Amino acid sequence: MTVNLPPTMPLRPIDGIRVGTAIAHIRYKDRPDLAVFLCDEGSVVGGVFTQNRFKAAPVLLSQSRLGNVRGVVVNSGNANAATGDRGFNDARASSHHLADLIGCYESQVLPCSTGVIGEFLPIDRMRDGIDRAYSCAKPDGWNEAAQAILTTDTAPKGLSASFRVGTHEAHATGIVKGSGMVRPDMATLLAFVATDVRMSGGVAKKLAWDLAERSFNRLTIDGDTSTNDSFLLIATGRSAAPAIEHEEGDRYEQVLEGITPVVRELAIRTVRDGEGATKFITIKVAGGRTERECLQVAYTIAHSPLIKTAAFAGDPNWGRFCMAIGRAGIDDLDVSRVSLDIDDVAIARNGLVAENYCEESAAQEMSEPEFVVLVDLGRGSANTEIWTSDLSYDYVKINAEYRT
Amino acid sequence: MTVNLPPTMPLRPIDGIRVGTAIAHIRYKDRPDLAVFLCDEGSVVGGVFTQNRFKAAPVLLSQSRLGNVRGVVVNSGNANAATGDRGFNDARASSHHLADLIGCYESQVLPCSTGVIGEFLPIDRMRDGIDRAYSCAKPDGWNEAAQAILTTDTAPKGLSASFRVGTHEAHATGIVKGSGMVRPDMATLLAFVATDVRMSGGVAKKLAWDLAERSFNRLTIDGDTSTNDSFLLIATGRSAAPAIEHEEGDRYEQVLEGITPVVRELAIRTVRDGEGATKFITIKVAGGRTERECLQVAYTIAHSPLIKTAAFAGDPNWGRFCMAIGRAGIDDLDVSRVSLDIDDVAIARNGLVAENYCEESAAQEMSEPEFVVLVDLGRGSANTEIWTSDLSYDYVKINAEYRT
Repeated sequence: MTVNLPPTMPLRPIDGIRVGTAIAHIRYKDRPDLAVFLCDEGSVVGGVFTQNRFKAAPVLLSQSRLGNVRGVVVNSGNANAATGDRGFNDARASSHHLADLIGCYESQVLPCSTGVIGEFLPIDRMRDGIDRAYSCAKPDGWNEAAQAILTTDTAPKGLSASFRVGTHEAHATGIVKGSGMVRPDMATLLAFVATDVRMSGGVAKKLAWDLAERSFNRLTIDGDTSTNDSFLLIATGRSAAPAIEHEEGDRYEQVLEGITPVVRELAIRTVRDGEGATKFITIKVAGGRTERECLQVAYTIAHSPLIKTAAFAGDPNWGRFCMAIGRAGIDDLDVSRVSLDIDDVAIARNGLVAENYCEESAAQEMSEPEFVVLVDLGRGSANTEIWTSDLSYDYVKINAEYRT
Repeated sequence: MTVNLPPTMPLRPIDGIRVGTAIAHIRYKDRPDLAVFLCDEGSVVGGVFTQNRFKAAPVLLSQSRLGNVRGVVVNSGNANAATGDRGFNDARASSHHLADLIGCYESQVLPCSTGVIGEFLPIDRMRDGIDRAYSCAKPDGWNEAAQAILTTDTAPKGLSASFRVGTHEAHATGIVKGSGMVRPDMATLLAFVATDVRMSGGVAKKLAWDLAERSFNRLTIDGDTSTNDSFLLIATGRSAAPAIEHEEGDRYEQVLEGITPVVRELAIRTVRDGEGATKFITIKVAGGRTERECLQVAYTIAHSPLIKTAAFAGDPNWGRFCMAIGRAGIDDLDVSRVSLDIDDVAIARNGLVAENYCEESAAQEMSEPEFVVLVDLGRGSANTEIWTSDLSYDYVKINAEYRT
């Protein structure tokens, strides 16, 4: 089940990058499950990674390899997580193998894995898949890669955009996988975004972080975070646009604003493809003293099984919102200032059910596949927005049957 | 659905307390939904209450009324929460009405409510119910009260125990309601425990806290906490046992140990009657540096939808445990020291799948209605234990259909 998930259109190649895929039989049979990104010299990569302490071997390696980049190797079906020294060596061996083909240092290749945790990577099949993906790499291989990185996702998710840096046109293309075990701080998703803008490794690192804060760090499906999530931002520098030399300033902002629609939409599509999702819910929290406390409230709402099941049922259950807002950890919250709206329907004002509240109208809004929950804490001017999905029978079904 | 929930046996009266119930038509039709506890002079009450910021009016009142007690009035069907000043006045009016009947101060009567949030209490029906419950109150009314306080629970839950204080026999009887929106820090449950031991109000307060830490603060169904939860401990002082005058020492310990089996079993039965529960899961975390970090890990496991669905499916999914342990907020966790057992089956050692691990045996253990998850963090000697249930289709069904 997906909620208004748009099809992925043909993705625009990014000058300086070729993408190859292969059927490597890592776990799935007869479907592409391995992808390589080959980057021309001069490319740099920034990245944001899972906060989980059980970081998979490829995460540990990729984190240490930000900067100059020549290649990325991704597999689905096996996460190479909780695999100890052997897993670390397997991740090294994969990246080493691709580095040999490219003719670069191993440290210029980043490995990424997603899939089952606690099993060893079939390294011979990996090497074989890398050979084949390498040999068929092409500029317009993005759509195939979007397919190859999937696990429980129902459909590939990718997007391209053009934007201006000064008077020059620049481009960005990105793909993402992830549909469960997805929450902020880079939970289970892999996202690969490339741009042709020229920048330093330091700028790419900062830019990846700023982009994640506007996108992948604002979504949650079930509150669970994975061992593997990685968002890589590759910049090839092939655009005629002037190089971004500083981590702030007008040009930096232009690139940040230019790529934001891509990552934001990738994040939103991840939620639309959330495991068992029947609703796409935008949670806005306003009137907080800090963005941090707004986020606390938003996530408490988004992770509450009682609210998620009420959302599934289309039940505008003020009681459950009270409960979630009240346990969000704001010790000095004055509940008599809290308001709640669902779309345009006022549910509560000043901590009480709103006068003229019409449950039927609210239920009508919540019966739609998409709605907005707006909480006003009435104590400041900070605000935030996150995206989540509901908790359905299918979520239980998918996760009771799939082996993570 | 319940998991090995034992029937409630006839509950032993506690000298100095009479219990009455009534059909007050608060929300449910033709079932008892109101109970009063009438306490003889000399009784004291301690209590532990929800940490939620949206505290219901009766919680705010009862919190301020610990000490000498003459009565408790409880209704199900309506939580009188998020009801503002009017709700506060309604809670006052209920307790005032019972106080008039008893002939005591309003401040000696504690109100408790559970049920739908955000609706006003039907105060006339409350008064009428209180009249009738008062007039039929009797020493052996506990079993009827256990029934009257239920909401989505499938069965009443109560227990009596005898213990020794010095050479004298003493007694405790308790009842509990709560099946969803239940988690530590006194989430949605109401528990009433009475003992005939004599003690001061200060000792009762400390004792209630110590008992909660061993019972109601160690269970979780879905991580959601309610606006109303209250655990009251009433001590009538009618036992011939010597009075407990200090908040520590041998006699205090005897009473604490004597009542612990009652509250612990009430807490466990609450989980056994958890909404949609098909499994009763004990989560033990050992080898932590502090009990606090053990609890963090235990609750992260207990609240993970991915683990709860795996438990429902009977799937010994090491990957999901890695994920949950890794995101439990222990920044300097050395994952290569973490071990996991399910009952007697070693799942993982030193952060890796255990040698000789037999998935079939582990799946067999998890297919039982009850199993123990044991995590060893390998970094200290602190440990803890909590109880939880799984996430089933029925949990979704119940919460998609019931209005909190």
